Amino acid sequence: MSQSFYPPQRTLMGPGPSDVPARVLGALARPTLGHLDPLFVGLMDDIKALLQYAFRTDNALTLPVSAPGSAGMEACFVNLVSPGDKVIVCRNGVFGGRMQENVERCGATAVMVEDDWGQPVSIDKVAEAFAEHPDASLLAFVHAETSTGVRSDAAALCALAREHGALSIVDTVTSLGGIELDVDGWGADAVYSGTQKCLSCVPGISPVTFSPRAVERINGREHKVQSWFLDMQLVMGYWGANTKRAYHHTAPVNAMYALHESLVMLQEEGLEAAWARHARNHAALVAGLEAMGLSMAVAEAHRLPQLNAVNIPEGVDDAAVRSALLNEFDLEIGAGLGALAGKTWRVGLMGHSSRERNLVSCLTALESVLGSQGAAIRTGAALPAAKAVLAG
Amino acid sequence: MSQSFYPPQRTLMGPGPSDVPARVLGALARPTLGHLDPLFVGLMDDIKALLQYAFRTDNALTLPVSAPGSAGMEACFVNLVSPGDKVIVCRNGVFGGRMQENVERCGATAVMVEDDWGQPVSIDKVAEAFAEHPDASLLAFVHAETSTGVRSDAAALCALAREHGALSIVDTVTSLGGIELDVDGWGADAVYSGTQKCLSCVPGISPVTFSPRAVERINGREHKVQSWFLDMQLVMGYWGANTKRAYHHTAPVNAMYALHESLVMLQEEGLEAAWARHARNHAALVAGLEAMGLSMAVAEAHRLPQLNAVNIPEGVDDAAVRSALLNEFDLEIGAGLGALAGKTWRVGLMGHSSRERNLVSCLTALESVLGSQGAAIRTGAALPAAKAVLAG
Repeated sequence: MSQSFYPPQRTLMGPGPSDVPARVLGALARPTLGHLDPLFVGLMDDIKALLQYAFRTDNALTLPVSAPGSAGMEACFVNLVSPGDKVIVCRNGVFGGRMQENVERCGATAVMVEDDWGQPVSIDKVAEAFAEHPDASLLAFVHAETSTGVRSDAAALCALAREHGALSIVDTVTSLGGIELDVDGWGADAVYSGTQKCLSCVPGISPVTFSPRAVERINGREHKVQSWFLDMQLVMGYWGANTKRAYHHTAPVNAMYALHESLVMLQEEGLEAAWARHARNHAALVAGLEAMGLSMAVAEAHRLPQLNAVNIPEGVDDAAVRSALLNEFDLEIGAGLGALAGKTWRVGLMGHSSRERNLVSCLTALESVLGSQGAAIRTGAALPAAKAVLAG
Repeated sequence: MSQSFYPPQRTLMGPGPSDVPARVLGALARPTLGHLDPLFVGLMDDIKALLQYAFRTDNALTLPVSAPGSAGMEACFVNLVSPGDKVIVCRNGVFGGRMQENVERCGATAVMVEDDWGQPVSIDKVAEAFAEHPDASLLAFVHAETSTGVRSDAAALCALAREHGALSIVDTVTSLGGIELDVDGWGADAVYSGTQKCLSCVPGISPVTFSPRAVERINGREHKVQSWFLDMQLVMGYWGANTKRAYHHTAPVNAMYALHESLVMLQEEGLEAAWARHARNHAALVAGLEAMGLSMAVAEAHRLPQLNAVNIPEGVDDAAVRSALLNEFDLEIGAGLGALAGKTWRVGLMGHSSRERNLVSCLTALESVLGSQGAAIRTGAALPAAKAVLAG
């Protein structure tokens, strides 16, 4: 016979999920309503308004897809790409490769713009790609690459797409709520995110937003969207304004309570204040790590404050360190992904995980574990260096 | 500024979600683990084993899709259907139509076998369809039609598919945990369900299972699966046995806690005991409704105990009754869907909602509201009739 499962209380400082505050877990466990209950429909309207606030957009088609970020990505591609289209896809980490998969599975051609892992997307290379492929109908890129901890210049890339009459698809899974994000200011056309990063909600839902230009393209499609579940014309019947709410699928009601609560918390703190908090704690972490003798994998100008790629010191056993952190300190940090596996750790300071208590836990645990592994680190210096930044 | 949302405690007796027990809500709110945490990976193995128990199968490819039942349906179709295929689809309610949409969006042809809403799928008509289309590679049907409350003969239909060398796709969204379901005994090939019906878990997850024959077809595909998110070859890398768990998407960790707890509860009660409970409470409800003077929409032989389609008495305002039940009694029952809108109510006795307290609430509330609407019903007879059945 199986038994009930009681997880320990981990400190989540990997690439997501991040620590979920008690307030959000409390909301998650409230009594389930029917997905067509008028009170739930009212909540849906409030979630839409809060997502518009978080995304900085007036887009009417702004809603949470009832599935993880990968499904949010797919929702953007299957609705905007038609067979035979040409899409410029920027790859500077894992998620650009996933975008390529999406384009090709839509029967379209992906024109790849490649940058090294750890580098931002090159604006010049994208401009060249548009010059070479003036018939490209879309530009797709990742704002905050979770696999490398790099930020690309979303404003410039979206502007380039508009110049060339193309729509833009922007992955903001790791950026929403953590760094400046301005959907309307950028003129981005389809933007997707996740709940389990800087919103510090439970994983499983993907907020998306589509510009009026994107909606126009969806409404003008000649081929049906290949996914029934992700077809925005159908989803709009349930989430859209001014329509009788038509049953499409059963919304994950309790997950929506949690998302709503996490967005209420973001609104209470204020977007800019949340961004500033992420920046401050990031600076403190870097100061602490460098005082310990560790080095960052990404150049300062391109670092994501919420996802810190740290070089693994030579001679240190990657997996042993992560296991010790998990088993002795209940602390999760992330492994490197793809090309960076075994070379970097990814330390997340996302959402609720971006706070002093987590900084202290992480620096002291890392110092202890690296010390016991015989790594050549300086001891006793990390915490004062981090605290000096916070006091600063 | 938006405020925190506090839903009332409804009694959920519609077509799902059903009442979620406090034990499951408690599990849902436990501390979030990382989706690659060894403890979570252990939980995943336990969920697989419990799903095998609930589905009555030894299928190795048995797992919860990280999205609602509609996505589970789509997972079955996009993995098993290739462009140019011919699929026999049975439609006797809303969900057969959705299957047709799935087939066509895969670039395949749907051969429709039509039965009236409220009738089960006709075995003879399906046999005729196979005779006429011997090249059909799949048969798809709904075991328990949520839109009408009708059960079809899954064993006979799966056998027919096997006879003709076709695979079967079976919708068991409403049947899993509520009525006899025997994936291996039927020889079904791809089966999907939902969490928010007779499992009484929160909505948002779709258990699926694929037979070895289905896996063989997936592995032999010439076209990539059109959905990256639902591509079982990729999902298997994360959920599969004996492989290093490869990151595919971030699992909805907390929803998995809840699913696990609901499956532990099912195992504690025992499958057959759960089926018997659903049958007993159904018989009591029908006795009560008939004593009140109401009639059932579906012939006795084909009724689903967990979803009771009740004819709306003439002259009664459908929406007004449902609103009064919701607003005065916090009781949700379901409206008719599609062809049955305005003609029937759907009273769910699913999972945790299938218990005496709910029966009593529903019969007394319905009697009160119908009485105040001036409907010609007998008063005072429903509850004794229902209780006599339970005592019987």
